[in-house]
Amino acid sequence: MEVYFDNSSTTKPLGTVIDEVAFGMKEFYGNPSSLHNLGLKSERKLKECREILSKTINSSENEIHFNSGGSEGNNSVLKGILKSGTHFITTPFEHASILNTIKKLEDNNIKVTFLKINEDGSIDLNHLRNSITKETVLVSIMHINNEIGVIQDLKTIGEIIKESSSRAKFHVDAVQSYGKIPIDVKKMNIDFLTVSAHKFHGPKGVGFIYIRKPNTLIPLIEGGSQEFGLRAGTQNIPGIMGMSLASKIVNDKINENYKKVSGIKKKFIEKLRSIENIRINSLLNESFSPYILNVSFKGIKGEVLLHFLEEAGVYVSTGSACSSREREKIGGSYVLKALGLTQDEISGGIRFSFSDDNKEEEVDYVMDNLNKGINFLRRKK
Amino acid sequence: MEVYFDNSSTTKPLGTVIDEVAFGMKEFYGNPSSLHNLGLKSERKLKECREILSKTINSSENEIHFNSGGSEGNNSVLKGILKSGTHFITTPFEHASILNTIKKLEDNNIKVTFLKINEDGSIDLNHLRNSITKETVLVSIMHINNEIGVIQDLKTIGEIIKESSSRAKFHVDAVQSYGKIPIDVKKMNIDFLTVSAHKFHGPKGVGFIYIRKPNTLIPLIEGGSQEFGLRAGTQNIPGIMGMSLASKIVNDKINENYKKVSGIKKKFIEKLRSIENIRINSLLNESFSPYILNVSFKGIKGEVLLHFLEEAGVYVSTGSACSSREREKIGGSYVLKALGLTQDEISGGIRFSFSDDNKEEEVDYVMDNLNKGINFLRRKK
Ligand SMILES: Cc1ncc(COP(=O)(O)O)c(C=O)c1O
Ligand SMILES: Cc1ncc(COP(=O)(O)O)c(C=O)c1O
Repeated sequence: MEVYFDNSSTTKPLGTVIDEVAFGMKEFYGNPSSLHNLGLKSERKLKECREILSKTINSSENEIHFNSGGSEGNNSVLKGILKSGTHFITTPFEHASILNTIKKLEDNNIKVTFLKINEDGSIDLNHLRNSITKETVLVSIMHINNEIGVIQDLKTIGEIIKESSSRAKFHVDAVQSYGKIPIDVKKMNIDFLTVSAHKFHGPKGVGFIYIRKPNTLIPLIEGGSQEFGLRAGTQNIPGIMGMSLASKIVNDKINENYKKVSGIKKKFIEKLRSIENIRINSLLNESFSPYILNVSFKGIKGEVLLHFLEEAGVYVSTGSACSSREREKIGGSYVLKALGLTQDEISGGIRFSFSDDNKEEEVDYVMDNLNKGINFLRRKK
Repeated sequence: MEVYFDNSSTTKPLGTVIDEVAFGMKEFYGNPSSLHNLGLKSERKLKECREILSKTINSSENEIHFNSGGSEGNNSVLKGILKSGTHFITTPFEHASILNTIKKLEDNNIKVTFLKINEDGSIDLNHLRNSITKETVLVSIMHINNEIGVIQDLKTIGEIIKESSSRAKFHVDAVQSYGKIPIDVKKMNIDFLTVSAHKFHGPKGVGFIYIRKPNTLIPLIEGGSQEFGLRAGTQNIPGIMGMSLASKIVNDKINENYKKVSGIKKKFIEKLRSIENIRINSLLNESFSPYILNVSFKGIKGEVLLHFLEEAGVYVSTGSACSSREREKIGGSYVLKALGLTQDEISGGIRFSFSDDNKEEEVDYVMDNLNKGINFLRRKK
C-alpha cells in the first residue's frame, strides 16, 4: 500500500488536468503576443483562464497575472514594492521565499517588523496595529502556514491595515489555502495574493499573483509587455489551462473536500491519542487547516521516523519540502521554533498533509506503521 | 492550407514531447526536495535531464539551472551580476528582456555601452575590444538575433573578452540558436547562457541558464535551496523532461535540420527576386541563421501584409512577438533601426521564420499569396 500524506509539499495532478495540458500543447501553441489568428486564439484562451481564476477570489480578470509559481509570486511582490527607506511587516514563520528575500532587503535599508505569534499560532493583532507607521508600505502574511496549518484571520487583519494606514498594502501568501478555504480579496481587503498551481492538483511551474487595481509593482522579470506589462516572458498557456481547470475543480468542491479532509484529520488525531509523549501542533478547530496535521513525537528524530514510514510506502514530511536540507543545519523547523516549542518537540516534528485524494482507511495503515516505528525507535534508545 | 512561418515567436511542441510532459505529470509528481522515495525519484530524473542538457553545450551537469524561460534567464543574469558602479556592454538589438532590464539598471548607476553594429549586422569587434575597462563586469551578446537572424562570432568575441579582462564575464542569449547551431560553452569561453524550451519544440514556461563554475549570481527568485541555491521554487519536472527530450531530438538532428531549413530559405530568396522594391535583411550566407528570413517590402506596411497573409493561413511576424504592440508606438522594429534601414524599409519588414516542421513546397504557397498581397497593396495606393 502507498499513502501519500505529503500534499503540502506538492500534489498529484488530476488526470483531467494532465489531459488539458496536453490539449493546450497541441492546440494552443501560438504565441499570444503574435498578431495573427494563432496568436489571437491563444490570447483568447488566456483571457478565458483569467476569468475562471478571477471568479474564484472575487477579483477582475485583469487583476490576474500569470507567473511560474509561489516563490516567484512572493519575490515579485516583495522586490517589486519595497524600496530603500520603507517599512515592511511580516511574520517569523512565512515561507522561505519571503524570509530569504527579506534577508537581502534588510541590507538595503528596509526596516522589517516580525509580528509576535500567540501560542495558538495566530499573529498578535495588537502588535500588528501598533507596528504600522507612515513608512509602512507592505504587510505580508500567509493565509495558512505550510508547516502547522494555522489559519490567519485575514478579514480582521485586512481591516486593521486599512484603518491604520492609507499607504500600507496587504499581501497574502495563499499557496496553502487557495482552493482549500474560501478567499475573497475584496472582503479581506487584499492588495496582492500569491497562488501556486501544483499545490491543488495543477501543473508544476505555473501560478499567478492577483494585483488589485490600480496597484502596481516593478516587474521582477522585465522585457515584453506580457501580463499587462508586469511579467515578461511568453506565457505558458498549457500550464495556465491546466491550472485553471484544476482551480475550477477544487473550488467547485471546496466545501465537500473540506469536510472529507476534516474527517481524515479528526480520525487521525483520535487515533494518535493512544501514543504517549506527543504534541499535536495543528489543532482540530476552525483556526487550523484540516489539510495539515503536524505532530511532535518526543524523543524521536522526525527524519528517522520519516524514513521508517517511507519503507512502508507512507510519504510524509518533516516540514516545508524546499527547506528540508537547510533544516538539518539549523536543528529543525524555524516554524516550530517560532511557536516556542522545545528542542525535543522541534526535532520530533512530522507533517502529515492531506488532499481529497486521500481516504480515511489510509489513516489506519499509517497508524499501524507509526505505532511500529515509534515502538521501535523509542525502544532502541 | 496552413503555413506556420513564425517559428521564432514560438514552435509547435513535438508529439513525443507532449507525451513526455504528460508522463512526467503522472509519474514524477513528487517534490524533488522531499526526503522520501517519491522525492528522490524526481530528484534523480532532474539530474538525468541536467545531464542530457549539459552534454549539448559541453558543460557539466551542475552548471545547468532550470527556470521558467528566456526572459527570466536574461533578467537573472543581468540583475544577478550588475551592481551599482559597474560597467556593462551589450548591443542595441538585444531582446526586450535585456534592453528593458537595462533601462532600470542605468538609473542605478550602472554604465552601459551599446556596441556599434556593422552594416551586415555583426558587432564591431574593435569597439568591443576598446570598450572593456576595469569596471566591466559583464558583456551580453545574443547568439542569433531574433528578428534578422544574424549570427555573432561567439568564439572570437569570447577570446576578445578573455584577453582584455580577467573580470568581465560573457553572457550569451542563445534563445534563437540553441538546438539550431552548435554551442560549446568551453570553446566559446561563455560564462552564462540563456535557453528557452518553447523555441525548439519544447514546452512553454521552461528553460535553463548555464552558469559556468565557479561563477555565481544573486538569485532573482530567492527562497528554497533548489537549483544549487540559485533559483528557488518547486521545479517543473514535467516541463523539464519535455525540454530535455526536445533538446535531445533537435540536437541529434542539428545538421540535418540546418540543411533542410537552409533549402527552404534558399528557395524562398530565389523566388523573392521576382518581386521589386524589396530588401532582404537576412542574407543567405554563414553569418545568418537559415531559420530566419527578414524582408522589407518597400511601400507596404508590414502589419497589413501580415494580415493579408493570415487570410490565406500563412502565419508570419513583423518582428519579435513580445514587442508587437510596442513596435507600433515607436514606428517599427528597433532591430531594423539599429541596422540603419530607412523608415520605409523598417515599416515594410516581415519576418519569416522556419523550423524543421516546414517543407519546401510551403514556399510556393506563401509566394503565391505574397505576390497577390503585394500586387494588391501596392496597386491600391
Ligand atoms: C532572443 C530572445 N531572447 C529571449 C526571449 C524570451 O524568451 P521567453 O519567451 O522564453 O521568455 C526570446 C523570445 O521571446 C528571444 O527571441
Ligand atoms: C506557503 C508557501 N508559499 C510559497 C511556496 C512556494 O511555491 P512554489 O513551490 O510554487 O514556488 C510554498 C511551497 O513550496 C508554500 O508552501
